[in-house]
Amino acid sequence: MHQATYTGDRTVRVRRRESVPPDTGHVRIDVAFTGICGTDLHILHGAMDARVRLPAVLGHEMSGRIAEVGAGVTGWQAGDPVTVMPTASCGACPACEDGHTHLCHRLDFLGIDSAGAMQNSWTVPADLLVRLPDGLRLAHAALVEPTAVAVHDVRRSGLAPGEQAVVVGGGPVGVLIALVARRLGADVLLVEPDPYRRSVAGTLGLACLDPSSTDVVAEVESRTGGAGAAVVFEVSGSAPGMATAVGSLRVRGRLVLVGIHPVPREVDLHRFFWRELTLLGARLYRREDFEEAARLLAAGDVPADALISRIEPLAHADAAFAALDSGAGVMKVLVDCRHTDDARTA
Amino acid sequence: MHQATYTGDRTVRVRRRESVPPDTGHVRIDVAFTGICGTDLHILHGAMDARVRLPAVLGHEMSGRIAEVGAGVTGWQAGDPVTVMPTASCGACPACEDGHTHLCHRLDFLGIDSAGAMQNSWTVPADLLVRLPDGLRLAHAALVEPTAVAVHDVRRSGLAPGEQAVVVGGGPVGVLIALVARRLGADVLLVEPDPYRRSVAGTLGLACLDPSSTDVVAEVESRTGGAGAAVVFEVSGSAPGMATAVGSLRVRGRLVLVGIHPVPREVDLHRFFWRELTLLGARLYRREDFEEAARLLAAGDVPADALISRIEPLAHADAAFAALDSGAGVMKVLVDCRHTDDARTA
Repeated sequence: MHQATYTGDRTVRVRRRESVPPDTGHVRIDVAFTGICGTDLHILHGAMDARVRLPAVLGHEMSGRIAEVGAGVTGWQAGDPVTVMPTASCGACPACEDGHTHLCHRLDFLGIDSAGAMQNSWTVPADLLVRLPDGLRLAHAALVEPTAVAVHDVRRSGLAPGEQAVVVGGGPVGVLIALVARRLGADVLLVEPDPYRRSVAGTLGLACLDPSSTDVVAEVESRTGGAGAAVVFEVSGSAPGMATAVGSLRVRGRLVLVGIHPVPREVDLHRFFWRELTLLGARLYRREDFEEAARLLAAGDVPADALISRIEPLAHADAAFAALDSGAGVMKVLVDCRHTDDARTA
Repeated sequence: MHQATYTGDRTVRVRRRESVPPDTGHVRIDVAFTGICGTDLHILHGAMDARVRLPAVLGHEMSGRIAEVGAGVTGWQAGDPVTVMPTASCGACPACEDGHTHLCHRLDFLGIDSAGAMQNSWTVPADLLVRLPDGLRLAHAALVEPTAVAVHDVRRSGLAPGEQAVVVGGGPVGVLIALVARRLGADVLLVEPDPYRRSVAGTLGLACLDPSSTDVVAEVESRTGGAGAAVVFEVSGSAPGMATAVGSLRVRGRLVLVGIHPVPREVDLHRFFWRELTLLGARLYRREDFEEAARLLAAGDVPADALISRIEPLAHADAAFAALDSGAGVMKVLVDCRHTDDARTA
């Protein structure tokens, strides 16, 4: 079988390896599709070289079918359509003891800390499997993981029907948050400077603002009778995005911090005090988020086709990374891990 | 009657004025004691000259007895022991419409935006009155307002019995928060650099750390088996205090922002994301906080005597401000508004 690996120096290489037979409690999956996300790009850029071990098999957004079941695994059989929750927790640290297993102090994140899904065949612990609903296409199911992020973020916000929500950042996760929030009955406004991403969001019927030409805070105030937004999702990871988020919130508003801010940011703490705002860090997901995400995709509530810009075969995984890296004109890029005929081996 | 006024230029002057007869819906109170707080000091220092109108009668922490009842006021009579919730809300702004009247966009804060309690006689709307419980001494009742702040902050934190709480800043509000949190059954640690304030907290049986000689984050980790604190109250309003607060929290920990940060602070947002921390702005109080504070003081759960460092007569209000301004060796300073014999008039 073949696998795409990050080998350092901004390079992705496809190589041939033997499949890993499933140990006790494990299953081997024939991978169908694997998505690429912003974290994968960070890895490609070398920003996480201290964490990943080279060569690293990336990929944590995936779909596939069980190929082989290890000893002691019950409830699963070959052919079952699945995705994988790529978060293996230790079960013994303070976070796990508190029941926050997704925030485990020693979390093994598959696709970063250990081998990921960008290969024909992936062997993982069976307790990370999530069953795909009937009728969910495998290409769409590769979006379960980022949709689970969005479900988790909206759940954490406590968003209620009729509330004004603002999503700062209209990449795949931002658009998914906007879609999940809208389905819940919120009034959603998306803020995104990139015209292509705004146009994709527009085709999905999402109201969009361009922060480079609009005073977002004033616009939100105007739309809410001077009150401000009940919930803002900060998905941009940028200093201006954070300032917009804090400035847009109404009294007792909730700011959900989704984007990764690699350096400390200057935050207007006085406004947090004055308006009794709440800031909620939100990371990853729990099993119920994954299951809800799969349901939303199966029901068409999240229109996966509109978000998938491009699918490249595993042999051209480097082209998939390059497409996403170019920034303009793409939302979600998938790698089709079913095709290996012309794989270039290292 | 006499009143102490801030006249600008770091000056407090006592002057003679006629009492204000109570209009419809109002009562006139014979003030007993009025406390001075950090905000009053900010005003004295000129930091709020854009907001206060000179000469300004300060004071929003008080106790007294009703002297005169205006038309249309029911349920109150002369002689009733009372304190006043100094927050008059408009009832019509978005915050009031949402029920968050203490965060009213047009809040009239008595003692800042309009005349306060540092006078023999104070006339206020009857709907701001809070009845004092039997047996609560009037000097102690002047601490109901800052205790209500503490009750509100602890309520907002969702603190549960047995949880580790850290209070960063051991002035009056910090110590009151620590006392309220301890009574709730939390394990409380107070962080305060001033030796006098640590000694006062120590006599109340509170565990204290000196941040100038102790690595607070490491100490909290060590006391919690590597987990961190469930709740931190940031009461210092300082950049190092904020960093200590963020660094001390366990996964899903809550940071209650009590201190006033006059400038934006660099905040480690990545840690908020990584540990799914929550930041909760907390300002003022609601009626239930005031009533609970009065009960705690009446029951002796908050030992007011240990917190009152000094009582000055109204005629020497300037000395009361100077004592608090000197910083060292004081916690709460009260002005006795019952004594006017030697008042210097302006």
